[in-house]
Formats: sequence, C-alpha cells, structure tokens
Amino acid sequence: MTDLSPVLAALDADRDGALERLFELIRIPSISTDPAWKADCRRAAEWLVADLATIGFAASVRDTAGHPVVVGHHDGDGPSVLFYGHYDVQPVDPEGEWASPPFAPRLEERDGRTVIAGRGSADDKGQLMTFVEACRAFKKVHGKLPCKVTVIFEGEEESGSPSIVPFLHANATELKADYALVCDTNMWDAQTPSISVGLRGLMEEEIVVTAADRDLHSGYFGGAAANPIHIVAKIVADLRDTDGRILIPGFYDGVDETPPDILAMWNGLGRTPEAFLGSVGLKHPVGEKGRTLLELTWARPTAEVNGIIGGYTGEGFKTVIPGKASAKISCRLVHRQEPETIRAAFRQFVRERVPADCSVAFINHGGAPATQLPYDSPVLGKARAALTDEWGRETIMACMGGSIPIVGLFQAMLGMDSVMVGFGLGDDRIHSPNEKYDLNSFRKGARSWARILSALAA
Amino acid sequence: MTDLSPVLAALDADRDGALERLFELIRIPSISTDPAWKADCRRAAEWLVADLATIGFAASVRDTAGHPVVVGHHDGDGPSVLFYGHYDVQPVDPEGEWASPPFAPRLEERDGRTVIAGRGSADDKGQLMTFVEACRAFKKVHGKLPCKVTVIFEGEEESGSPSIVPFLHANATELKADYALVCDTNMWDAQTPSISVGLRGLMEEEIVVTAADRDLHSGYFGGAAANPIHIVAKIVADLRDTDGRILIPGFYDGVDETPPDILAMWNGLGRTPEAFLGSVGLKHPVGEKGRTLLELTWARPTAEVNGIIGGYTGEGFKTVIPGKASAKISCRLVHRQEPETIRAAFRQFVRERVPADCSVAFINHGGAPATQLPYDSPVLGKARAALTDEWGRETIMACMGGSIPIVGLFQAMLGMDSVMVGFGLGDDRIHSPNEKYDLNSFRKGARSWARILSALAA
Repeated sequence: MTDLSPVLAALDADRDGALERLFELIRIPSISTDPAWKADCRRAAEWLVADLATIGFAASVRDTAGHPVVVGHHDGDGPSVLFYGHYDVQPVDPEGEWASPPFAPRLEERDGRTVIAGRGSADDKGQLMTFVEACRAFKKVHGKLPCKVTVIFEGEEESGSPSIVPFLHANATELKADYALVCDTNMWDAQTPSISVGLRGLMEEEIVVTAADRDLHSGYFGGAAANPIHIVAKIVADLRDTDGRILIPGFYDGVDETPPDILAMWNGLGRTPEAFLGSVGLKHPVGEKGRTLLELTWARPTAEVNGIIGGYTGEGFKTVIPGKASAKISCRLVHRQEPETIRAAFRQFVRERVPADCSVAFINHGGAPATQLPYDSPVLGKARAALTDEWGRETIMACMGGSIPIVGLFQAMLGMDSVMVGFGLGDDRIHSPNEKYDLNSFRKGARSWARILSALAA
Repeated sequence: MTDLSPVLAALDADRDGALERLFELIRIPSISTDPAWKADCRRAAEWLVADLATIGFAASVRDTAGHPVVVGHHDGDGPSVLFYGHYDVQPVDPEGEWASPPFAPRLEERDGRTVIAGRGSADDKGQLMTFVEACRAFKKVHGKLPCKVTVIFEGEEESGSPSIVPFLHANATELKADYALVCDTNMWDAQTPSISVGLRGLMEEEIVVTAADRDLHSGYFGGAAANPIHIVAKIVADLRDTDGRILIPGFYDGVDETPPDILAMWNGLGRTPEAFLGSVGLKHPVGEKGRTLLELTWARPTAEVNGIIGGYTGEGFKTVIPGKASAKISCRLVHRQEPETIRAAFRQFVRERVPADCSVAFINHGGAPATQLPYDSPVLGKARAALTDEWGRETIMACMGGSIPIVGLFQAMLGMDSVMVGFGLGDDRIHSPNEKYDLNSFRKGARSWARILSALAA
C-alpha cells in the first residue's frame, strides 16, 4: 500500500495545472452526434492519449466504425480496475442562450459557488479528468499506481454508443478487470457524496390486439362485436391491483427487499413526494402501498404503459369500433428480475385476456436486466469509506430508476460489477446551455478517486 | 273509408307508367355533395313538384341555403301524415365499376330477380316514388286521398342535411302531422316486410386526463408518478362488469325490457352470432350475458370506446410517462334513456376515477335520444297488418342499432313519431357502383303504401 497523504497534497499543489488541462480538453468541441465535428472528436481522443502517456499509460486511439475509443493501460500491484468515461459532448444549441461561448471554458461565480462553465465540463470531461488527475498525483508522488488501471474513454456516449458493443466484444480480454469504475453520475447534493449501487433494468414490449377484420360501425355492431380498445384497456387495468402491486404471475421473482439500514438512510434524505412530484405538478405517489417514494423509484419494479392508440383519434368524433388497438408497455426491473422471463410471463398474462375470437401480436422492443451492487460487497464498503473521509459526510448508497447502458454491458459482456461514483450536481445543466461543473466537484473529485484507489489496494 | 281493391288494381294496371316515371327521376343526376350537380338537384326537385301537381298536391320547390326542399300538401279526411324521402343521391365514383351508366336506368336480371339498375334507384328515389304512386292510384280511383298527406323530399340527405334543421324550425306548424312515414329503410329479406320501430340514440363524449404537467422519463418517475393512460384504461375497464353490464350509475334508467313476443319474433329470425359476427371475422357476442344478438344490437344500450390515444405511438419505443391521455367514448341509447342525464352520470363516473392530483376535461360531442314506437301503438298495428296482407308474411318489428337523424328531428322538433317502412334489400349496393332496387320492391312497395294509407284512415 502506498501512502495517501502526499498524493492528496500533490493534488492540492497542482490545482491550477489540473484546471488548465481540463480547460484544454473542453476547448476541443467533440460533439459526437454531428459529423461536422468528427475531426474534433478524434482530436479530443488524441489529446487524452497524449495526456495519459505523460502519466505512463500505454494509451492509444482505437478506431471504430464511428468515433474512436481511447484505451490506456497502467500496471499496478493491487486489484485491476477499468475506469470508464466519455470524451464526447452534446451539441450546444440553442447557442444564443449561452452566457459565455460553450467551448471557451472559464471560472464563474454562480449561486455563491465557483463553477467551471463550458460544454462537457460536467458531462463528462470534468468527471473523467478527476480520475486522470488522481492517477497523475499517485504517479508523481510514488512513481506507480496502487491498482492495475485500464481506462476506456468512449466517444459516442451522447449519440447512442453504436460502436461500444462491437468494441467490447472484440476487446473483452483486454478490458476485463476485477470491477469497473464509472464516473458519469451525480452527488446527492453539493456536500454529500453518493455511490449509485443499483440501476433498474427494462423490458419493452408492444401488443397489438386484433378483433374484427375491419373497422365496424358502432351502431350496427355495437353491443355484439368485441372492441379491441376495451381488451387493451382491460389488460392495462389488470396490470396492478388497488394496492399498486403488479399482477403478472411471477413478476416479483428475483425482487429483493432492500436492507432496513439502506431504507432508513433513504428515508433520511428528505426526498418527499411533495418536493419530488410537486416539481411536475403532482402530489401523490402511485405504486405499491407502504413503500416510500425513493424505494418506489429506485428499488421496486414497475409495469407501465408508455403509449396507447386505437380507433379514431382526430378532431371531432367517429362512432367506430376499430379492428385493432395497440399499446407499448415497459417494465422497470430491479435486482435479479430476468427480462425475458418477465416478457414471457407478460405475454401469457395478455393472452389470457384476449377473447378466443380475437388475437394478439407481440413486438419485442428489447430489454436489459437491472444491475445491483450487493450492499455488503467489499468494494462498495471501501469506496463508501473513502468518499466519506473526503467529504466529511456519510456517503449515500443511492440507486437510479433508469439504466446506464455501459454498466449493463460491463456486467453482461465482461462479467464485471461497476462502482458508480460521480461528482455532478442536479444544477449542472448537462445537455443544456450554460453547462457547468463545480470547481469543488472537480478538486474534491480528484481527491476522492485518490482515496478510492488507495482503499481498493488496501 | 275508401275501397282499397280498385286502388291496388289501378297500381297494377299502371305498372309501366310508374316505372317510366321513376326512370325519369333517376335520369336526373341529383348528386348533392358535389356543387357541379347543383342545377340537377334543383331539376329533380322541380320534376317532383310537377309530378305531385298532376296528383293534385299543392307542391313547391322551397329554397334553403343549400339544395331545395320539396313540400307538397294534399287534403284528406283521415289522420294527417308527413311522408319523408330524399331526392338527392350519392356520387357515382368509381364510375368505371358500373356495368351500365349510373343515370341511365334499366331493368336487369340479377340473381334470378328483376332489378332497376341506377344510382338512386333504391336510395331513395325508388322508395319515395312507391308512396307517390300509391297516392296517384288513390286519386285516380277515388278522386281523393284517405289521409291528409304532406310530403317532404329533402335534397341534402347524402351530404349531412345542413339545411333540414332550420327548415323544420321555420316550417314546424306547416309540417306537423299526426305521425311521419319514413321510407328509407330495408325489408328483412326479399320476401319479408319489416317496420323499424326503434332506433338507438347516442351520447358522444371525449375525456382528456392530465397527470403531470409535462411528459416524464419513466426511469426517473416510474413507480411514483401517476400515468394518465392507466387512469383512462381503468375508466374504460370499469365501464362494464364481467357480465357485460354497464356500471355507470343510473345508466339503465329508462331502458325497457323488450316484450317477450317481440323477443320471440327476433329469435326466430335466424340472425346467429356465427353469421352476423362471422362476416367480420368474429364469433362470440360481447355485451350483456343472457341477451340475444339482436337484442344486444337493437334494444340494449352500449358504452364503447371509439378512440384512445396517449404517450408515444410511433415506430419503436420511448419510455415516457405522458402528461395526458384521452379517449372518445360513446353510448348507444335505447327507449327512454336521456342523453344529457347519461352524460352527467358518465362524467361523475369518470371524475370518481381520476386521482386528486390529476384532472380531467370533458368535450361534449353531442347526442340524441333513441326513438321507439311503442310496440302496442295503434298506428304500428295498422301498418303491420297492411304489410302482412300485401306480402303474405308476418311483418318483422325490427330495430336499428344506429340512428336515422330525420326521425330524431321529427320527434324532437315536431313531436311526431315516425313509422319507418321501406322496401330496400341488403344487396341493393346503395352508395356503391351498380346500385339497384328490386322491381318487386317497387311494385309491391307502392301497393304496400296504398294498403297502409287505407288502414290508417280506418
């Protein structure tokens, strides 16, 4: 184990240098979704390779069918980690709404805090550089890293990551590590660090119910002919009981109860239904009775209609009994729920509700399992203690209601758990004009990674 | 009372003349929906006025904002009747599919029957001329009519009847009679006469449920935020119990049980679910359990979704929780159900199912009460016996699942019941190329009206 204190001191001593390096990276307009910026994406990748080389990484720009991936390897004695970030950024439009040019980073005072303004400052250049700076300080002080570190910086995260699956497939052996470290998430608030330990999975399915072989006149046939909208509506209504529990048989297989200490922690966070739902004009949480808001959105599965259509939907009225009606239904999954098992159970649930003279077609729109770091995993305990040491506040074990695709891919393709630590804040305006990253996030983020790397090696 | 036999004999004697008069009327291309045929519509009206004048009617072409209405009056000693028909016809496209020119009427043999081929032969020129010929024969034989007769021939029935409401309003006193006779319906089959005694009414309503004030990400909010599609689906699903009974409180107020003898008659008609629903690819009647197919579509009310939309309905998938969802819902009404009472009850039913933090807006798309001639009404008994005498078969007391607007208007605006007798057949191809009217319908139709007029005066 290497001594941590001089590493933290080195990070503090080189604050200005670290900021200037981040500014250099932000100045490269690496917008991945617009082909006009293709050369800049490559330039950002090359800048990262060059910077990693100064720290002793064997780094290279790796071509893909789209924008390149940066991979860098550094030896170390401890466990092996794969650090993930992305160097591409969102477009800047509407450009007129930026208070300063998006690719001319600068320090500003906002709401009493010093922030780094610029596109990509938070998402994800500032975040990924916290890790790079931690490695740099270790190398400077000790001449080595406390872990065997591989970094992977993607260039297409903001444009659907079309190349990442083939890249991971082709380079699985090279990239496999004991666990992944992913820096693309937020703190709980500006003072409170957070680790995202669970991400909900997804099962997406469309149903198309056919009754009559044509649209019917509701005067002539009404009262006798099956109406597919009613069939679909009944299926949707049957999905949940009055207590919000989902009634697809076997649906809750693989759903774990969240440990009481974690629930107690969540309950202490003060995310009230009034505040959370009030922000969108609602008040009362739906979902399973007896579960708190955070449990409902973080640790419980859902079955939800995302779209429905049938019959006449234009202006005015038409007394038709349509031949078809359809709905798009998705389930957010948690823990060990298996998407394809849920899909099969859902299809059976639907079939049982379609009358014998009607039919249903299913369209599989994909799915992904949930990812969940066990609350008692050693790596989680180490990262949690390291963050608490740095920030002086208990680290929140948080979950996310949606998925982060790369985490699912690391799990599915490389068999790796991911530790998701990030220093973004809810007011960072990512994807919007005037994106910023708190200077404090950047500085203490780097110190946090130094502590985590040290703790992992212990 | 006037002697009927010589009237029937006169009709038989003037068969060729009657056919030639109908041919003359069919030859006028009185397509109401296309302004190109405006002058022909007026020409048809003028032709009718001239013909009515030869029978001693005080007839005139009455201008409206659209095509004119023909009104003719003839004195008589018996009860007063208002006979309704329409002289306008549907467009002929696709014209290439006509075996003979649409406005060059001729006799043809089809399926072993002699038919009058031509646009408007059945809908409604042939039908309305059956009544005119009956009057003509009465006048010729007896010099008078057995009833006080007013005829009204509309020129916009095939184009939405925009002028009829103001016309009835402006001429209510002139048009009011003891009852209306409407000739725009079908026989049960080519041998079996039918009177339409009931038409279902309608209540049309749209609901728009709003939950959050914007579309939400189902990962972030799913499990906590209300989904308006689920709310709408639950409302739809709650409309009916598992026995098909509609659960809107008070919905069945004013719904009468159909007399057992009428139900027995309907059950003898052989309209099986297999035949009726099989024609559109279905097998099993929905609706209230224990009711026969004809009862369900003729004499029972419905609550039916005619359109539903919410969330993402394009290709692919989007995990959105929409802010709004909507449905268009209509009720077919029977007997003494009151549309506005049903609307109010429906709205209350909906409101009770919308959570406190969500809202619902209602759009009134109109409505009309059902019309029902009492099964024991004397006029019905007379018309029924007259038809049975002419056709040698028991007259079917039928209903229709949809509405005929003019019948509702006669009831609402003039306080008149309508006796709906017509001689069309299901294979007349009205609104399609190669429309026809059976020569037998035309001849025996005229004889039927002679018998009915005679019976009404008795």
